Amino acid sequence: MNRCLALLVLVVLPASLPAQAPQKNRDSTGIDIESDLFHWPAAERRKHLDFERVLNRVPDPKRIRGYHDLLACEPHPAGSPGDRRTAERLKKLFKELGLEASLHEVHVYLSHFKGAEVEIVAPVNETLCIREKALDEDPQTRHPGLGPGWNTYGATGEVTGQVVYVNYGTRTDFRELKKRGVVLKGNIAVARYGKLYRGYKVKYAEEAGVAGLLLYSDPADYGYGRGIMYPEGGYANPYYIQRGSIRTLPYPGDPLTPGVEATQSAERLDPGAVALPKIPVQPLGWDAAHRILSRMKGPAVPSGWQGGLPLAYRLTGGKDLRVRLHVEQERRITRTWNVIGILQGAVWPEQKVIVGCHHDAWGFGASDPLAGMIAEVEVIRSFAEAARKGRRPARTLVFAAWAAEEAGMVGSTEWVEAHGEDLRKNAVAYINLDMAAMGTSFRAGAVPSLRRIVAAASRAVVQPGGPEGQTVYDAWLARTKKPARAGEPRFGDVGGGSDHIGFYCHLGIPVVGLGGGGSRGVSYHSSYDTLAWYRKIVGDDYQAAAMVARVVNVLAARLACAPVVPLDPVRIARHMRTHLTSISRLGEAVGMTTSFESFDHHYGGTLERPATRPPSGISLEFGTLAATTVVFEKYARSVNDRLVKAVAGGRLKGARLDRVNALLMAMDRAWLHDPGLPGRPWYKNLYAATDEDSGYAAWTLPVLRHALKHQDRKALIEATELYSGVLRRLTGLLEKLEKEIEG
Amino acid sequence: MNRCLALLVLVVLPASLPAQAPQKNRDSTGIDIESDLFHWPAAERRKHLDFERVLNRVPDPKRIRGYHDLLACEPHPAGSPGDRRTAERLKKLFKELGLEASLHEVHVYLSHFKGAEVEIVAPVNETLCIREKALDEDPQTRHPGLGPGWNTYGATGEVTGQVVYVNYGTRTDFRELKKRGVVLKGNIAVARYGKLYRGYKVKYAEEAGVAGLLLYSDPADYGYGRGIMYPEGGYANPYYIQRGSIRTLPYPGDPLTPGVEATQSAERLDPGAVALPKIPVQPLGWDAAHRILSRMKGPAVPSGWQGGLPLAYRLTGGKDLRVRLHVEQERRITRTWNVIGILQGAVWPEQKVIVGCHHDAWGFGASDPLAGMIAEVEVIRSFAEAARKGRRPARTLVFAAWAAEEAGMVGSTEWVEAHGEDLRKNAVAYINLDMAAMGTSFRAGAVPSLRRIVAAASRAVVQPGGPEGQTVYDAWLARTKKPARAGEPRFGDVGGGSDHIGFYCHLGIPVVGLGGGGSRGVSYHSSYDTLAWYRKIVGDDYQAAAMVARVVNVLAARLACAPVVPLDPVRIARHMRTHLTSISRLGEAVGMTTSFESFDHHYGGTLERPATRPPSGISLEFGTLAATTVVFEKYARSVNDRLVKAVAGGRLKGARLDRVNALLMAMDRAWLHDPGLPGRPWYKNLYAATDEDSGYAAWTLPVLRHALKHQDRKALIEATELYSGVLRRLTGLLEKLEKEIEG
Repeated sequence: MNRCLALLVLVVLPASLPAQAPQKNRDSTGIDIESDLFHWPAAERRKHLDFERVLNRVPDPKRIRGYHDLLACEPHPAGSPGDRRTAERLKKLFKELGLEASLHEVHVYLSHFKGAEVEIVAPVNETLCIREKALDEDPQTRHPGLGPGWNTYGATGEVTGQVVYVNYGTRTDFRELKKRGVVLKGNIAVARYGKLYRGYKVKYAEEAGVAGLLLYSDPADYGYGRGIMYPEGGYANPYYIQRGSIRTLPYPGDPLTPGVEATQSAERLDPGAVALPKIPVQPLGWDAAHRILSRMKGPAVPSGWQGGLPLAYRLTGGKDLRVRLHVEQERRITRTWNVIGILQGAVWPEQKVIVGCHHDAWGFGASDPLAGMIAEVEVIRSFAEAARKGRRPARTLVFAAWAAEEAGMVGSTEWVEAHGEDLRKNAVAYINLDMAAMGTSFRAGAVPSLRRIVAAASRAVVQPGGPEGQTVYDAWLARTKKPARAGEPRFGDVGGGSDHIGFYCHLGIPVVGLGGGGSRGVSYHSSYDTLAWYRKIVGDDYQAAAMVARVVNVLAARLACAPVVPLDPVRIARHMRTHLTSISRLGEAVGMTTSFESFDHHYGGTLERPATRPPSGISLEFGTLAATTVVFEKYARSVNDRLVKAVAGGRLKGARLDRVNALLMAMDRAWLHDPGLPGRPWYKNLYAATDEDSGYAAWTLPVLRHALKHQDRKALIEATELYSGVLRRLTGLLEKLEKEIEG
Repeated sequence: MNRCLALLVLVVLPASLPAQAPQKNRDSTGIDIESDLFHWPAAERRKHLDFERVLNRVPDPKRIRGYHDLLACEPHPAGSPGDRRTAERLKKLFKELGLEASLHEVHVYLSHFKGAEVEIVAPVNETLCIREKALDEDPQTRHPGLGPGWNTYGATGEVTGQVVYVNYGTRTDFRELKKRGVVLKGNIAVARYGKLYRGYKVKYAEEAGVAGLLLYSDPADYGYGRGIMYPEGGYANPYYIQRGSIRTLPYPGDPLTPGVEATQSAERLDPGAVALPKIPVQPLGWDAAHRILSRMKGPAVPSGWQGGLPLAYRLTGGKDLRVRLHVEQERRITRTWNVIGILQGAVWPEQKVIVGCHHDAWGFGASDPLAGMIAEVEVIRSFAEAARKGRRPARTLVFAAWAAEEAGMVGSTEWVEAHGEDLRKNAVAYINLDMAAMGTSFRAGAVPSLRRIVAAASRAVVQPGGPEGQTVYDAWLARTKKPARAGEPRFGDVGGGSDHIGFYCHLGIPVVGLGGGGSRGVSYHSSYDTLAWYRKIVGDDYQAAAMVARVVNVLAARLACAPVVPLDPVRIARHMRTHLTSISRLGEAVGMTTSFESFDHHYGGTLERPATRPPSGISLEFGTLAATTVVFEKYARSVNDRLVKAVAGGRLKGARLDRVNALLMAMDRAWLHDPGLPGRPWYKNLYAATDEDSGYAAWTLPVLRHALKHQDRKALIEATELYSGVLRRLTGLLEKLEKEIEG
């Protein structure tokens, strides 16, 4: 069936299509082993399953524990001596395990802590503690290399002023303060961590005229309000300090070389022209914050602003309370190193599946990032051992340990920028493992094209601690309260926050971030992120890391071995429709009509042949877009069904197979828009980007959201056309794919 | 139109009828003065409005402030020497103002505090403070007559045991503890105040085998979690203790004489046969509770159980923490006194409008109850001054100051039981003013038949602090976020908690509880309920009390003067339908089909002539009930419209007027069911009762709710028949009324 025929049946299609036909050939545990491998000729599936079994016999909790000891042996923030040693240690380990390993050196603009002081100067004189207390129960917390808390990319500066409490420091919080006439200009703001990326707290504070900012972790959000505190339990104690970057540049990576690799000789921006924070910022534990907040004398806060300290929170400190903040940081070009390990593919060595996790940490980093790195190392060991026995994946596996993620995904971004052309052409997928083994409750955020295969991989692994026969998938599904459709566990969208950004948002490579969670505690970005914390709170049995390694083994093996790359060309349509629905609601909320439901039911338009009734404004254009996803899904499903049959029958081979794979890989690249997103040219993926207001959440269909946020009708029309273009490109790819299949 | 005709038009009636026709004759402020007085012949309305103006020139904030000084001059709990002096003081004041005043002595079974101790006995020895700290800022808090905190009707007893935290002590909380296998038997439970009547916390604790119970006010619910603490702000400080009764008998009033007046010689129940608490119970401030909770060592609490103290709340204290609780109380028959003041009616002296507020208090009672009593005194002064000038209401006004409300509405219940026969026949309405003047944000809970006239009264008074021309009604409506219909401010339902219970639930007399709120603080049942607290937090200008006095002046004047009693026979139908809808949802939630919606739309049944299709189970019967309310509303509206016309034309006089009034007053009595509610024979009103699980909320249509709660299909069918009977009786009354009007 070609696309034109598909378009004709539009009117009778339901908005949501039925799930794929029930699968057969379940094995003795009820798991369907064959249908998950539909990208292989039927005759080769059993052999691949055998390979996966070989891989998954390798992971060993005891060995993983040993790697954890090795890698979390010292503090190793980016640019520190420990950073260099950690990179060398990883290179050595990768080599010993059997990879071709190398360091990828980058010269990047990092901040270095020089000193900081916070003191109450009136009505008492009291210096506040800015580093964590060492604990007898946790020897690593006594390590002399652990420094005070700080926020990288903060400005050097000194300020003395009155105090204003700004709640979480959201845009709404600052709006509320303005409405109440609270004076922020020249004063010191105290914001609690949470709700949004800390960099935006700084940005909004600067915009409001704040002269200095104190960030602290409130016990309601991180400490006793959540559960028992470390070291008895896992939650933040009064001395816990959250470090972290506060940059809000419209690109990740090295601040001075957006879009290009930060080599020693790279052309660089003038640091003065880069919008890094201009005010001093200092993070605190709540024991310190309490000393300020308990001396405030102003009016009570609005509802919802009260935190967990034992006092009525107030908006202002009053004239008698004065605080001095002094921060010194040095920003300079600094060397750091990605560690890259390669296992050459046996059949299509130029095609790559990349698995990565950063290696830099604010302190020991036992959880962030090493809970991911230890699983990655075990994946390396699994594939390397199999390779030594002569079983090598068809495609090349690239294992990365990224540098300076904490400074804004610096290492991974520079590597992606260095290898952009090759990756766009040859990268099948990127699997991100940052903090992956934090518990045994599996979770994943993935682009639509990878969701089916990620779910399938989780079906091949036994759930640690689960009842007899339960798979990771079963437990994941059981925790999914309202599945989008039957049998579908909950996936997160791919947004901000880790090393997948460069791959997906800049290059359009399918990405998944996965791992296990569910442990009760917070050591995030603090000096308590130690082996003792991890072993007490996540567990000393390393079942979580072994589980993650096994799921990644299966996932990477399928991505790297399937003759036809297992990227799903169908599901994107449904996700796009879902996001259009939520955008439509958003539009109504801001008073812009974007509703497409009536159109969707009563009227059919096509991409190239506009409907007989002329479009009348945004509503109709938007409706066309949503309606087209229905057409597209039907067509994609039809092409995919025939593809699966062709694969099963072993009919795709040689150059034809290569062309099919190139077309499937091109589907995710079809979302790239070279001019980039509005105001963020580095972000080129029209499907998803980092939320431009909070920095943590994912913005799907970001150009539409941007237009709605700014209530810009013209931009909304242009955005709609942009997304229509994506659907045209996707349809074109499917047409080519159809031709290849029919040969 | 007779009822049979009305029933014939059922099928085309919408579920919700249009509001009454728009009113004319607005005065210069836009207030409709004439149509609110539709119970007068048109010719007499201006004269009555003039009377209201005379009344409302009287209230004077300065005088009210003086009454507050007089009445809040000493602690006066029921049964104390201060109680007797307060009753005498009120009698004297009522007399001086111009009423016939008397004391109504009752002999009731009250608890008296003898002593209490709470101490931690291990791992430290620490005696906990059980009384509020005196404050320099508030001289009354130093009064030697202020005693420790206690819970009246608690058992005498001593227990030493381990500690279990039971959150709010709801049924759900105790279920959660059981699920987790927490041992309660023989241990001391610590429950935080809030969510439900404290008596039920005791009841559920006893049922779970708890040996002793500590109740405390958590700072999240009462203190700094809500706002700034007393004495700087109004919220509970660490030493605030909430006193209060913990009885859960199925009747209010004297525990030993349910249903009859507690005279000296009354026949009494054996105290041993009355289900009063069997375990010692002690209330604490959170400073004391903190000392226990901070020493607990057990597992963390479930989500939602965390309070506002600076620690992770835990379920159990562990073996090493032991607490001793020792409570001594004496229960004995005690004399106390209702104060009754009478202003004889000029035309129908046997008919009565009753205005009341209790006079007993846990301490000084500046807010509870005196914020209501000072408004009542000003209402008395208003009517008494007018009477001296020869303007006396047509009906008798009874002003009451009730005794021992805090022990379970004891005084008002005994008075109601003493005068049941007369009140059933002659009481037009009861207006309750407990804590009425706590701010200038007006609010009211009322039975359906009084809502129209209460709203109308609020239209005749200017809103203190409001913009030019704003009435109390306007401000009230503006605060009502989702009015049930246009122009209708939010009313509460009439449930538990104060002196209206006897009037409504036992005798079927229409009741309203009204007043003003909106002040930011809590002194409830503590030694901080003083004049200083009131004047700081509610205000020292007494505008709230003057506002309440003025609204009550208008309301009481209309109830006491209108030739036709201004009870609305129409609105009950709509309310009943609303409650049936919510009961229907409740039924679905517990798996019992009670939905009537489809029936309501497709099928019409009648009361006496069942529909042609035979009923098939509960669903249909329930549907019949809901559908019938539609018929009833239409019919009632028609009768009422003709009644209003007949009144306006001055056509109702003499014996015919008396019969009309008797019929209108019988409408609310039609809800009485002499055998009472299931398990609560004293509660005879089928329309509303106290929630039998929390004690604070109102249960409307309680017999239906009871059947659903117990998932008892047979009881549900019987309940439906019971309510069909009410509608039959109401319809019969309307038929008689119709005949009288057509005369």
